[in-house]
Amino acid sequence: MDGTALLFAGHQFDQPQAKTAHGLIRGGDRYRVIAVLDQPHAQASADAGEVLDGHARGIPFVSSLADFHAQFPQGADYLVLGVANAGGRIDPSWRPLIEEALQASISVVNGLHEFLSDDAALRALATSNGARLIDVRKPKPKAEQHFWCGRIDEVRCPKIAVLGTDCAVGKRTTTRLLTEACTAQGRRAEWIYTGQTGWMQGGRYGFILDSTLNDFVGGELEHAIVTCWEDTQPELIFMEGQAALRNPSGPCGAEFLVSGQADGVVLVHPPGRIYHKGWQHRGRKLAPLAQEVALIQAFGSLVLGIALNDSGLSESEARDWQQRYREELNLPVVRPLAEGVSGLLPYLPPFPPS
Amino acid sequence: MDGTALLFAGHQFDQPQAKTAHGLIRGGDRYRVIAVLDQPHAQASADAGEVLDGHARGIPFVSSLADFHAQFPQGADYLVLGVANAGGRIDPSWRPLIEEALQASISVVNGLHEFLSDDAALRALATSNGARLIDVRKPKPKAEQHFWCGRIDEVRCPKIAVLGTDCAVGKRTTTRLLTEACTAQGRRAEWIYTGQTGWMQGGRYGFILDSTLNDFVGGELEHAIVTCWEDTQPELIFMEGQAALRNPSGPCGAEFLVSGQADGVVLVHPPGRIYHKGWQHRGRKLAPLAQEVALIQAFGSLVLGIALNDSGLSESEARDWQQRYREELNLPVVRPLAEGVSGLLPYLPPFPPS
Repeated sequence: MDGTALLFAGHQFDQPQAKTAHGLIRGGDRYRVIAVLDQPHAQASADAGEVLDGHARGIPFVSSLADFHAQFPQGADYLVLGVANAGGRIDPSWRPLIEEALQASISVVNGLHEFLSDDAALRALATSNGARLIDVRKPKPKAEQHFWCGRIDEVRCPKIAVLGTDCAVGKRTTTRLLTEACTAQGRRAEWIYTGQTGWMQGGRYGFILDSTLNDFVGGELEHAIVTCWEDTQPELIFMEGQAALRNPSGPCGAEFLVSGQADGVVLVHPPGRIYHKGWQHRGRKLAPLAQEVALIQAFGSLVLGIALNDSGLSESEARDWQQRYREELNLPVVRPLAEGVSGLLPYLPPFPPS
Repeated sequence: MDGTALLFAGHQFDQPQAKTAHGLIRGGDRYRVIAVLDQPHAQASADAGEVLDGHARGIPFVSSLADFHAQFPQGADYLVLGVANAGGRIDPSWRPLIEEALQASISVVNGLHEFLSDDAALRALATSNGARLIDVRKPKPKAEQHFWCGRIDEVRCPKIAVLGTDCAVGKRTTTRLLTEACTAQGRRAEWIYTGQTGWMQGGRYGFILDSTLNDFVGGELEHAIVTCWEDTQPELIFMEGQAALRNPSGPCGAEFLVSGQADGVVLVHPPGRIYHKGWQHRGRKLAPLAQEVALIQAFGSLVLGIALNDSGLSESEARDWQQRYREELNLPVVRPLAEGVSGLLPYLPPFPPS
């Protein structure tokens, strides 16, 4: 553990954009989350876990840094900017909070494309208060980046890609749940993080895909998988996917199938979502799930199971979709947040190979 | 025109790695190529065009910079490093040549991932001799990069992606030939460059895909297309593809179909190549052409025609493959370097749409 954290969710904790905050509340080994700064929810005196998924976790909302310090006189080690907005810019309205935190010697963790450490005034403020600016997406020096070299062939355990039909559907959460479910059954599994939240959750093997130069994406992925294999010799490796193969603003997924040589895919899909997240005004509809399965097959890979994101669905609607997809695709279909992912485990490839 | 250029091909002018040099000899509006520095070919007193494709262009080989200056006392404005090696590092053995050029006040153009301008000694040498270090792949400042926003919908002319089944098969050359063939028939066409050679050839609209942060690839592509449309209102836009959808070291292609909203694809394929370029030792075979066509269809896009790279094939073998693919795929199949690409033009979408 690096220390305690106050999460800032841009006052939109109940939106998919706050998925970094959601992930850190669901679990992680790097930060112990003690409160969430979010004005609308602070007024309702809610618990962040309760709002997220109905499970209280003793994490209150606070309305300001002053309110936080009133409730937690011991303060926090980190303020984590837990919002992933399109384009990755820092909202100017957040600046007073960032300055206030640094003045209180709280280090600021930023997962956006825009870097706090590029700002001389913030750098000076951090230094003079003994705080740090941690820009998670800052690329590694080019000399430390890896080009793909084919060493992926040396990894002998199965590698499963957790892809999604859209952004913000729960790929990372499903990846972590699968890893935990395998571990609980005595099957040593590891996961490869590919986003800033994964790093913040304490992921040991991975890289931040969307802030990597395109030419090095395959190599950085391979390097993470090979290193994980060499260090831990797991029985199974799950890869956290990014975006979606048909994501309008930038497709992603083939990297895991081709460079990562996935032995199979778990596909996360939100039946309640008609348009790609953020692109309703451009009319970009999600493809039918069967077409996404066919696309993955056209890459020569195999979908092993489906994980449904129930968002926007009633319990009975969610069950209807689950049953419908089971029949239509002849695949196991689970609802990770409602029932866990253990229903998928019998369909994952064995190790050693049988 | 920026000026005259001496091309350096790493003494491997006849290899696919020298494709940047090849492209600049085939044509371009930025540099006038006057000689190629390549020891093996200089000894044979050959003409670079003759060696490239049998068409002499009055471009001799020279064996050294001293040899160049002996033959061309007026010198050159630029030394272009025309080699694209995997990983994109500058070979240490090239350094004496780079220093020698700078001392002769020749600016050095570098398309690799490693930057000359990161080297303080080279920077000083350039400054003191009035020469420039031009690192083509140096990313734009992040604030100048574009995120995808959906403005691609405003482009009303058809957009054709020129994809390939492998690296170094002639995607850029086919793109330029298609643009020229349309123009020759009175159909105003523009092309979007996506690699360093395209920039060196004087491409006006485009970006360098493989040195762009992954999250901005779709947006930079869209921005280039939209700008091209707004500036020139062409009847057709061709997009230069990169790598291949199944390129082991890093897949690419979906960007053009999804974010670039390609209305169709011209697919370049080398029937004489069994393994992906550079990955024979890893046993990475090219997929059958029909499978690549099916993969593009699975993305919801359409292959309009095939362009064959004849490399390694006799004339009769090349014709056999051409006929075989015509029958198997029921698509037009051309051999760009042998016969041009005009055979594809009737199959491109009309503008205005009929």
